[in-house]
Amino acid sequence: MAQARLIALDWGSTRLRAFLLGDGGEVLATRQSNDGAATLSGADAYAGALADLVGDWRADHPGIRLLACGMVGSQYGWREAAYVRCPADAAALADQLLQVDGALSIVPGLVDDAAQPDVMRGEETQIVGALALRPELADDALLVLPGTHSKWARVKDGRVTGFATHMTGELFALLRQHSVLNRLMPADGSSPASPEAFLKGVDAAREEGGLAHQLFAVRTLGLFKQLGAEQLPDYLSGLLIGHEIASELRAVTPARIALVGDPALCARYAQALVHLGQPEPLLLDNTAPAGLWALAQTMNLT
Amino acid sequence: MAQARLIALDWGSTRLRAFLLGDGGEVLATRQSNDGAATLSGADAYAGALADLVGDWRADHPGIRLLACGMVGSQYGWREAAYVRCPADAAALADQLLQVDGALSIVPGLVDDAAQPDVMRGEETQIVGALALRPELADDALLVLPGTHSKWARVKDGRVTGFATHMTGELFALLRQHSVLNRLMPADGSSPASPEAFLKGVDAAREEGGLAHQLFAVRTLGLFKQLGAEQLPDYLSGLLIGHEIASELRAVTPARIALVGDPALCARYAQALVHLGQPEPLLLDNTAPAGLWALAQTMNLT
Repeated sequence: MAQARLIALDWGSTRLRAFLLGDGGEVLATRQSNDGAATLSGADAYAGALADLVGDWRADHPGIRLLACGMVGSQYGWREAAYVRCPADAAALADQLLQVDGALSIVPGLVDDAAQPDVMRGEETQIVGALALRPELADDALLVLPGTHSKWARVKDGRVTGFATHMTGELFALLRQHSVLNRLMPADGSSPASPEAFLKGVDAAREEGGLAHQLFAVRTLGLFKQLGAEQLPDYLSGLLIGHEIASELRAVTPARIALVGDPALCARYAQALVHLGQPEPLLLDNTAPAGLWALAQTMNLT
Repeated sequence: MAQARLIALDWGSTRLRAFLLGDGGEVLATRQSNDGAATLSGADAYAGALADLVGDWRADHPGIRLLACGMVGSQYGWREAAYVRCPADAAALADQLLQVDGALSIVPGLVDDAAQPDVMRGEETQIVGALALRPELADDALLVLPGTHSKWARVKDGRVTGFATHMTGELFALLRQHSVLNRLMPADGSSPASPEAFLKGVDAAREEGGLAHQLFAVRTLGLFKQLGAEQLPDYLSGLLIGHEIASELRAVTPARIALVGDPALCARYAQALVHLGQPEPLLLDNTAPAGLWALAQTMNLT
């Protein structure tokens, strides 16, 4: 087996992902479990989840260090790591690593408190990874990390100068599953994608009237059969993503935009951005392993 | 007992309210049950719910007519009543009454299809009632009916010229009960009202950034203890109501605003409107009985 140098842990609310990284930070092996931070309580539970997933890696590579990012460092996590204030770069994050024990450290989150405070945990590491993989982004870029709580981070001269969270993914799930809009829709996951309905939703988001009003149209467009039942989830998705994009691009005109994360979701955002007149954005898959490697290098953990 | 002339039924999704109306439309007796349209399926269930609640009224007043409004007339209701197109007045609604049997009729809903279609069922009757009780509103007014799905109806020369629905109440309930924002809040209903936090939310709605972003601040303001846990529900309420009001007042400057419905909720909207520089709005309680009486008079049902 190639020389293993670091166990990188992307430990979010719903999942724990582990990456065994080699000499140049290359991924030698990957594993994941459903032991997300939201399902665990107390240090023993975290230690147990970690042993279950990567105990044998640690046994095979005595003395190997572990670096974790994400909700594992929240106030409900294993231990609470700091929030580093924006503007911040990789060195500022590395400075505030929380040492859990001799082997394991947790990356701090970021806070933007220029206006009402906004926070991230996990995405700061993905941003470090994106900048390590694509140094041309460091000058001036907008990094978008879509998800349950999407993050829009402004990067300038290698530092995150500020960011905003949008609860877009969570709103979609709530409305899809629990609201009156659910009634006219097919069961979750059973409908083929409708790019046409998605873009119709993106267009609707540009109109006046407010989101809480436009959401009701998901119901009426179904009621009056102007959209098929199977198109309604994509229309809803377009409406929410369209609002998110419009809010952000009202404030900033970035030199370039990069989308980081789940490829299918990033493709959806890219489609909306291009539809709204933006150039084709750069697409990056999960950059957490690259970010953890870069932070570990900064601190000579490997 | 005074002469009974009509059984008025305000039959929404969650509740059935019955009013025994006398000679001048005055309320002689009131009853309600939880047999809302959302809990009933099939004509027999509706007929049974009606007999349970007002069977004795009908026996005591042979030949008395019944007039119902609300979701009882939806496609999932007892029978589907029409949607009358805006602009529409009381006469246009009365023209389209759906006769269920010799005694019972259902008031049609309204549709505004100037842009994407928007619909109401029940509120059209409350509007008719408000105009009957307060004729000075008929010239030029904005009638606001706050609730799960708030309605903003523009009235001009005695007709509803158009309206918009906002899913404000439903969003509040979803976010309060099912979202990540719930975690920092006290259990539902257990916190005293905080007018200060409510108005702070109304103010936040005036900022740039978009609703899905501003919602996340409910979490971070709690996380950083800038608001107490017991203040967060009111901040959330202010944020959502503030967005609703801002969206509507961007488009229209009405001669007067009237709030119709639940007094506590209407008081909340009034507080926000005044805070945003509007004159003190007119407040009206449930006007459905007055509306049903007016429509029944139009059709000589009494």
